[in-house]
Amino acid sequence: MPEPGGVRADSVDELSGGVLAGERAALAQAITLVESSAEGHRQQASALLHRLRPHGGNAIRVGITGVPGAGKSTLVEALGMHLVGQGKRVAVLAIDPSSSRSGGSILGDKTRMSSLARSPQAFIRPSPSAGTPGGVASRTRECMLLCEAAGHDVIFLETVGSGQGEIAARSMVDFFLLLLVTGTGDGLQGMKKGVMELADAIAVNKADGANQAAARAARADMEGALRLLSSSESGWRQRVVTCSALEGVGIAELWSIILEFRRGAQASGAWHTTRQEQRLAWLHALLEEGIRDAFYTNSEVQEALPQYERAVLSGEVNVSDAAGELLNFTRYPEPSPGGRE
Amino acid sequence: MPEPGGVRADSVDELSGGVLAGERAALAQAITLVESSAEGHRQQASALLHRLRPHGGNAIRVGITGVPGAGKSTLVEALGMHLVGQGKRVAVLAIDPSSSRSGGSILGDKTRMSSLARSPQAFIRPSPSAGTPGGVASRTRECMLLCEAAGHDVIFLETVGSGQGEIAARSMVDFFLLLLVTGTGDGLQGMKKGVMELADAIAVNKADGANQAAARAARADMEGALRLLSSSESGWRQRVVTCSALEGVGIAELWSIILEFRRGAQASGAWHTTRQEQRLAWLHALLEEGIRDAFYTNSEVQEALPQYERAVLSGEVNVSDAAGELLNFTRYPEPSPGGRE
Repeated sequence: MPEPGGVRADSVDELSGGVLAGERAALAQAITLVESSAEGHRQQASALLHRLRPHGGNAIRVGITGVPGAGKSTLVEALGMHLVGQGKRVAVLAIDPSSSRSGGSILGDKTRMSSLARSPQAFIRPSPSAGTPGGVASRTRECMLLCEAAGHDVIFLETVGSGQGEIAARSMVDFFLLLLVTGTGDGLQGMKKGVMELADAIAVNKADGANQAAARAARADMEGALRLLSSSESGWRQRVVTCSALEGVGIAELWSIILEFRRGAQASGAWHTTRQEQRLAWLHALLEEGIRDAFYTNSEVQEALPQYERAVLSGEVNVSDAAGELLNFTRYPEPSPGGRE
Repeated sequence: MPEPGGVRADSVDELSGGVLAGERAALAQAITLVESSAEGHRQQASALLHRLRPHGGNAIRVGITGVPGAGKSTLVEALGMHLVGQGKRVAVLAIDPSSSRSGGSILGDKTRMSSLARSPQAFIRPSPSAGTPGGVASRTRECMLLCEAAGHDVIFLETVGSGQGEIAARSMVDFFLLLLVTGTGDGLQGMKKGVMELADAIAVNKADGANQAAARAARADMEGALRLLSSSESGWRQRVVTCSALEGVGIAELWSIILEFRRGAQASGAWHTTRQEQRLAWLHALLEEGIRDAFYTNSEVQEALPQYERAVLSGEVNVSDAAGELLNFTRYPEPSPGGRE
């Protein structure tokens, strides 16, 4: 696979043709291009995405989150093989805004999903190395579009939980699954505050062997906790299931829940509406990231901010006065009169 | 009480003297000044706050939230009278960023807390009429400072739950209490997603008469749900209690939980650290609000944004391209070379 530097100016045609033909190498190269930060590549990426956009949007996008050790990769492999067995094409992407995963993780992901990695119907791509969180999230969305244009029916977006990552992932998928495991004591491990509420379904994994009773108890606890939360506006009732990704137990049931969700959302129109809302929210997230970056990287702000922070902490300056003075460094120029019709 | 317009240029001295002497009229007038949006008043408010800041910070700041009907005012009155009986001075502020409460609510608050309103040791102030959410929150913080400078030992900040309001309130208090009531069916009414997790304690109110068993059951359910959540980094374990604000049952226990929280946080240093962090977070919240306002009220952005939103929804333009072009409208001018040392 050529490095981004190897993408030539005339290659957008070739690349888009290759992606649409479902060629893995072309898809991999297109993703590399889209992930590149180089200015020239951004323009090519933009042209490529513009051309492929009409061919995107047809996959079911499933987000899967859970702490390391919850068995996410094993579950994705089990679900993926279940779908491959039905003739579907499956793509797996990962997002991890909290760390810069090295090239080693590519091998890691493919090793952990060895059956899926060998299937010609599957495409596995590790997370891009971390830039800004928003940048990664933004490109992850674009990578999903590329996978859709390449004809994948289902996209799994795997998130290594950092709170921030889950919220980003939630905002770009149709269905969000939280994977938990029972701990050695009572209760559940890795229940991040707030994440439970983002999930359309919760699966208690590793419900096998001596762990089955504990997993069933955890499922009942979770169902109790969810009853205390307001029901979603969409009318969807969050599901809790047990499964064993390792033994393949509960996998078909989990997939049927996802299909049930889609049937309901498509019938009510929520499927389309949610995706439209996600696009607008994405635009505004990028705008807010952009204005925040511009402010905090402004040389005068960078110079003055630490002093203002100290003055605020010591009580020398009122917080609102400090904010007002800092904001004065970055007033936008007024558009010149007559400069616009 | 004079209107803000009645505050004269030389009155900052008088006002700060009156506030420090604990005069109710001076405190009320100072709050009116701080809440005023007029440019001249902002300067006077800034001078007043600067002078009073060294006298602030000594109260316990308690946030109380819950849906309308949960009995917040009754609970605040019960807790307030409990404290007044111990010789403490109590201030009650309200924050409601979601609506502009009219003057009628002043009467409403004082009517609902009629015993407390008659106590010379208590000061009750309804929410300022809504400006920007951040503006209200910012001024609420400043009003708390004024109440502290006036010698109040405890400040209750009452929030009418809108999600946004709770997060703002949480960021300016030491202790956050969620008030719930059992519904007619099973489960709890008014459990907003995410709010449970902001609370240091949860009180199931109206545990009186025929409702006692249901309240106890709800308490047990809540404790079960909280066990599933990760414990806080601070080491504080969220408490769940039942109470009847109307009958005065559980009020002393609730207050002792707040004191226990303070003892632990002061011993560990978390009390001071949290307040410092809150000040920095407030500065950054004001900065982000300011840059967001400047961007979205920019005339070129306002003109172009709807077109870009439509183009993004129709798929004509890539989301990241749209964001990039919109951000180009508001590049900051470069500081002139040599303009800074």
